[in-house]
Amino acid sequence: MRATVMTGPHEVEVAEVDDPTVQSPGAAIVEVSHTAICGSDLHMYHGSMLLPGVRPGHEFIGRIVAAGGGVENFAHGDDVLVSGVIGCGHCPPCLSGHLVRCENAGIQVFGTTDALHGGQAELVEVPLIDRHAHLVPDGLDPEAAVMLTDILPTGYLGAKRADVRPGDTVLVVGLGPVGMFALRSAQLLGASRVLAADTLPDRLARAEEFGAIPVDASSGTPAQVTELTGGRGADCAIEAVGSDQTILDAVMSVRAGGTVSVVGVNQNMAMPYPMMYALLRDITLRGTLASIPGTWPELVPLVVSGRLRPEEVVTHRMGLSEVAEAYRMFDDKDEGVLKVVLDPRN
Amino acid sequence: MRATVMTGPHEVEVAEVDDPTVQSPGAAIVEVSHTAICGSDLHMYHGSMLLPGVRPGHEFIGRIVAAGGGVENFAHGDDVLVSGVIGCGHCPPCLSGHLVRCENAGIQVFGTTDALHGGQAELVEVPLIDRHAHLVPDGLDPEAAVMLTDILPTGYLGAKRADVRPGDTVLVVGLGPVGMFALRSAQLLGASRVLAADTLPDRLARAEEFGAIPVDASSGTPAQVTELTGGRGADCAIEAVGSDQTILDAVMSVRAGGTVSVVGVNQNMAMPYPMMYALLRDITLRGTLASIPGTWPELVPLVVSGRLRPEEVVTHRMGLSEVAEAYRMFDDKDEGVLKVVLDPRN
Amino acid sequence: MRATVMTGPHEVEVAEVDDPTVQSPGAAIVEVSHTAICGSDLHMYHGSMLLPGVRPGHEFIGRIVAAGGGVENFAHGDDVLVSGVIGCGHCPPCLSGHLVRCENAGIQVFGTTDALHGGQAELVEVPLIDRHAHLVPDGLDPEAAVMLTDILPTGYLGAKRADVRPGDTVLVVGLGPVGMFALRSAQLLGASRVLAADTLPDRLARAEEFGAIPVDASSGTPAQVTELTGGRGADCAIEAVGSDQTILDAVMSVRAGGTVSVVGVNQNMAMPYPMMYALLRDITLRGTLASIPGTWPELVPLVVSGRLRPEEVVTHRMGLSEVAEAYRMFDDKDEGVLKVVLDPRN
Amino acid sequence: MRATVMTGPHEVEVAEVDDPTVQSPGAAIVEVSHTAICGSDLHMYHGSMLLPGVRPGHEFIGRIVAAGGGVENFAHGDDVLVSGVIGCGHCPPCLSGHLVRCENAGIQVFGTTDALHGGQAELVEVPLIDRHAHLVPDGLDPEAAVMLTDILPTGYLGAKRADVRPGDTVLVVGLGPVGMFALRSAQLLGASRVLAADTLPDRLARAEEFGAIPVDASSGTPAQVTELTGGRGADCAIEAVGSDQTILDAVMSVRAGGTVSVVGVNQNMAMPYPMMYALLRDITLRGTLASIPGTWPELVPLVVSGRLRPEEVVTHRMGLSEVAEAYRMFDDKDEGVLKVVLDPRN
Repeated sequence: MRATVMTGPHEVEVAEVDDPTVQSPGAAIVEVSHTAICGSDLHMYHGSMLLPGVRPGHEFIGRIVAAGGGVENFAHGDDVLVSGVIGCGHCPPCLSGHLVRCENAGIQVFGTTDALHGGQAELVEVPLIDRHAHLVPDGLDPEAAVMLTDILPTGYLGAKRADVRPGDTVLVVGLGPVGMFALRSAQLLGASRVLAADTLPDRLARAEEFGAIPVDASSGTPAQVTELTGGRGADCAIEAVGSDQTILDAVMSVRAGGTVSVVGVNQNMAMPYPMMYALLRDITLRGTLASIPGTWPELVPLVVSGRLRPEEVVTHRMGLSEVAEAYRMFDDKDEGVLKVVLDPRN
Repeated sequence: MRATVMTGPHEVEVAEVDDPTVQSPGAAIVEVSHTAICGSDLHMYHGSMLLPGVRPGHEFIGRIVAAGGGVENFAHGDDVLVSGVIGCGHCPPCLSGHLVRCENAGIQVFGTTDALHGGQAELVEVPLIDRHAHLVPDGLDPEAAVMLTDILPTGYLGAKRADVRPGDTVLVVGLGPVGMFALRSAQLLGASRVLAADTLPDRLARAEEFGAIPVDASSGTPAQVTELTGGRGADCAIEAVGSDQTILDAVMSVRAGGTVSVVGVNQNMAMPYPMMYALLRDITLRGTLASIPGTWPELVPLVVSGRLRPEEVVTHRMGLSEVAEAYRMFDDKDEGVLKVVLDPRN
Repeated sequence: MRATVMTGPHEVEVAEVDDPTVQSPGAAIVEVSHTAICGSDLHMYHGSMLLPGVRPGHEFIGRIVAAGGGVENFAHGDDVLVSGVIGCGHCPPCLSGHLVRCENAGIQVFGTTDALHGGQAELVEVPLIDRHAHLVPDGLDPEAAVMLTDILPTGYLGAKRADVRPGDTVLVVGLGPVGMFALRSAQLLGASRVLAADTLPDRLARAEEFGAIPVDASSGTPAQVTELTGGRGADCAIEAVGSDQTILDAVMSVRAGGTVSVVGVNQNMAMPYPMMYALLRDITLRGTLASIPGTWPELVPLVVSGRLRPEEVVTHRMGLSEVAEAYRMFDDKDEGVLKVVLDPRN
Repeated sequence: MRATVMTGPHEVEVAEVDDPTVQSPGAAIVEVSHTAICGSDLHMYHGSMLLPGVRPGHEFIGRIVAAGGGVENFAHGDDVLVSGVIGCGHCPPCLSGHLVRCENAGIQVFGTTDALHGGQAELVEVPLIDRHAHLVPDGLDPEAAVMLTDILPTGYLGAKRADVRPGDTVLVVGLGPVGMFALRSAQLLGASRVLAADTLPDRLARAEEFGAIPVDASSGTPAQVTELTGGRGADCAIEAVGSDQTILDAVMSVRAGGTVSVVGVNQNMAMPYPMMYALLRDITLRGTLASIPGTWPELVPLVVSGRLRPEEVVTHRMGLSEVAEAYRMFDDKDEGVLKVVLDPRN
């Protein structure tokens, strides 16, 4: 089959590899129909945390074409959306969907190691599929379904773990696809206002279309938030970039007692944090790696009913054969590029 | 009257000063019967954040000897315990006891500025006493009452904001008086086990008497917590020291999804924080400056009924005239010294 | 001045009465600009709980024309919206807005006794106005402001106390004005679907315009809810009628573990309740009398930002002189009548 | 093997029956070492809800002596404690332990139908044992383990679902074994005081030994609670009897905004409920059928650490051959009889 391979920094290509086979009880092979590139793939693309030869992709949906013994909830031919992360599937946290709290092997991300090949490919082996997949609801837009495999849950948990309460003024820092879903989720949770900060005009304009108040981060986020809130600060903030500066901006923008929820992948093990300020202001700082399946009981009905329409962030559709160009334009943030969906059959 | 004055680092003395008078509507003068030295006084004592000439003390109880116009809840002769912090008293957060979220003047601590003299003195002016004091319940041990003015609420909020849930294994780092109350509060909130870390043998022994499992921090806290929890980590941690290292120890000791609640006064505006680790493990870091009056509806009944007996931490009673020696022995952590209560009449 | 007086069942008239004066410290006189008739006024109108001669009205806004000593937050000339209920204003629950939990005099409703005349009049005395009023935000539609004095908070608390969570399917029983706000509030709290039950076609049509799924209650609510939820039941239900049957319908319509929140004014002290069923299904039944001021910190920003537009339920504007006809048409549920606002100047 | 059989009202005997065999994938046979009689068994004993010939018992522990295919977590020879209730084991609620919310077959109780024989016997078949059993922790008192199979979880959920908060005054109505565990659980959750109501002097004395304040229900519970709380009412109440009157007593004893949590098995489908009073006072009424396995992650550590010592309620140990006398004395509430544990080997 054809699969995306990262051979080095900024080097992505489609290669012919062996078809996957069912390696463990409860696993299944999924023929991918739609897959997407995630902002966190770019960390490998930039060379940090890159294992050369890795086969990326943790956002994908497709059809089950083979299933091992012990699969209970799915059958050959089922169309499924697959969690971008997997856990052991047996411990109490995994059974209730909190994969990040897995007490055994721990949470793993598709497409980041040799042991778990990714979904930017024609076929993928999904371990213990009963715990890690969900039927694609009848009639659902496939692009909406792809968003349920990682970034909608990530933005949603980012908002929930920011302690958004009805009437709150919520700051979102970073208006990539995850930030856009944090924005939508903050609205869903009852925010009275969402302040949306970024430096890119096209993304600020998009956020405004979504009902948020744009904040041009190049002019300084905290000062503008302070002014927009009458000196009080935002009630909570969701950080969806991952740089030290944007996290610090979020901290300095929330009111006393506020919460900063970080979903941007910051790779710093010694980020300078204003602990004294956080203590004197009762501030909560929370990091989140999304336990995807645990969000489906809430998010699937919201997408099915149309309360959330996550396909709205998809701006480009390309063939898998164009994966190198897709990475480049997503990484360069070409104007108008928000989310790229790939078709493995092309 | 006589009042404690800090003239410079490690220089504390009792001086004769003018009696306070009622300066604002709603204020009252309290004749102090019991006051105490707090670990946070030591920051000034060490010279950091010290305003020479400051008159310290934010833990005190006493009798109302004068009251300005507009005082509704108290009368001359009432015995009251006074919050160590005050707010504007008028905004919604202040009205509901969340002083740290004050939307006007902001929270202030007695005895840290010239504008709000402290309680290690014979008399104190208490602004807007209706919002900042509570009658001493009949029959209550006065030393228990003093603990309700700052450090019991601080330890208690430390535990609550650590998200302690029934059955949890809770780590407390630092076994000074606030840490001891964090320990007791964790038990009150239903912890199955409290792991109590410090380097001082007498404090570890005391924590064990209180039902905790002692952890000698000089041998490395995270490794021991990992072992005591079968590799999983504590469910939550309360940090009551305030050093970068002890906060880091707490972070590295909690399980995925755990919460670290900091009540130790860390003065670092650039504390190195392992943000990447916190993100991958869903960790929450929370700072707390206690909004004292907001805790009384819960804590006063607990102390009155004997569920909590905060006088248990008091190890020394001295006269105000001995305040210099009291600071020295508390700062040096002389063996057996946990909490010193001072009598302003001596 | 002119005021509405209820002289007997179905007998409402405008009478000339003495102007009110400031009777207690902290009180103020409000010149009413807009007032409304509430469904709970109809209980008196029907004769139950009617004190003949009572002067009704607990929904009103207006301008302060006189203020007693001790008023801190407002001044002569301020335009205010006034809580339909008042408490003692001094106990901790009242200070934080939870009037129904008042520990002293207890909660009281304007316009239900001789001691607290209502707002369907030209002037009203408002006790302790600092605790019971809110400035009308600049630019806010006055009809939206009137809705903040009772029925929007009631519908909103009805939804909150139904434990609505994101993704839930929520049943609203009764589509009068309060039910409509319960519907809107359920959406605001993240419901994926709202099932809206009533027997009146015009109200069902209106609810559908608001995005809900109409359920014709004359065909049996529980059976239809069961079908619409694939046999599972609604996650929660808000009852906004107050009859035994509609409460029972709500109980029989929720899933195991579900919550039924009653805001309809049921006057039965021995309502037949299926306790056995509720026990075997883990069902929660909750009654709510809205503590209006406690909802303003959440609702005012939501109305100011336009997330909620409560003026949408107002269908009729009439002069106070037409109050008898206004009561009749509201009580008869004339087609198209949802909410009537009265102008005391006409 | 020998098993208890109920042949009619007040007729219980030990009979020789066929040994159970593994009937379904994932099931196991448990050789019972300890079993107990529950208050809810008495409903069948009295003749209500009795299916003649039924084999009772939903509290038991023992050793696995046979296991079907597909059992993952347990092996032959393991000592296990078994949930008194079972669910489908496959739906999301069952996977996370919320059996009462089972979306498939629904929750079932051992020993109440022909389809699920009970544990007052030598051997029991346990369906899908991975979801319904827990290893007996090393060194745990077997009588403590038996309490974890039903009544400790029931009393504990009764307290949790009463919304017990730190500092609360909690009323427990009914001091049988479940009521005693509600008392202990209320303490664990931070109650400042537990008021314990019953009519039996020996049970009141026992509750007082447990640290509660005894309330002789024969003199009227609400009046005494009102007096003990200075007119305010208890913050919450747990009802562990199941009669209409005791539930009504609980409702009339809580403060405005309070919660009444019912775990006593009331069999009335038309219990007279003071809905009007509950509405005007913001009262919550909640029924609970305990989802046993969902409580183990919290309760097992609490029992292992000794925070809870549920064996304290066991007053009598008897052989299975004495089961008729055991039922009689438990039903008659002979003085000093609280909980009877039976040994199937005798």
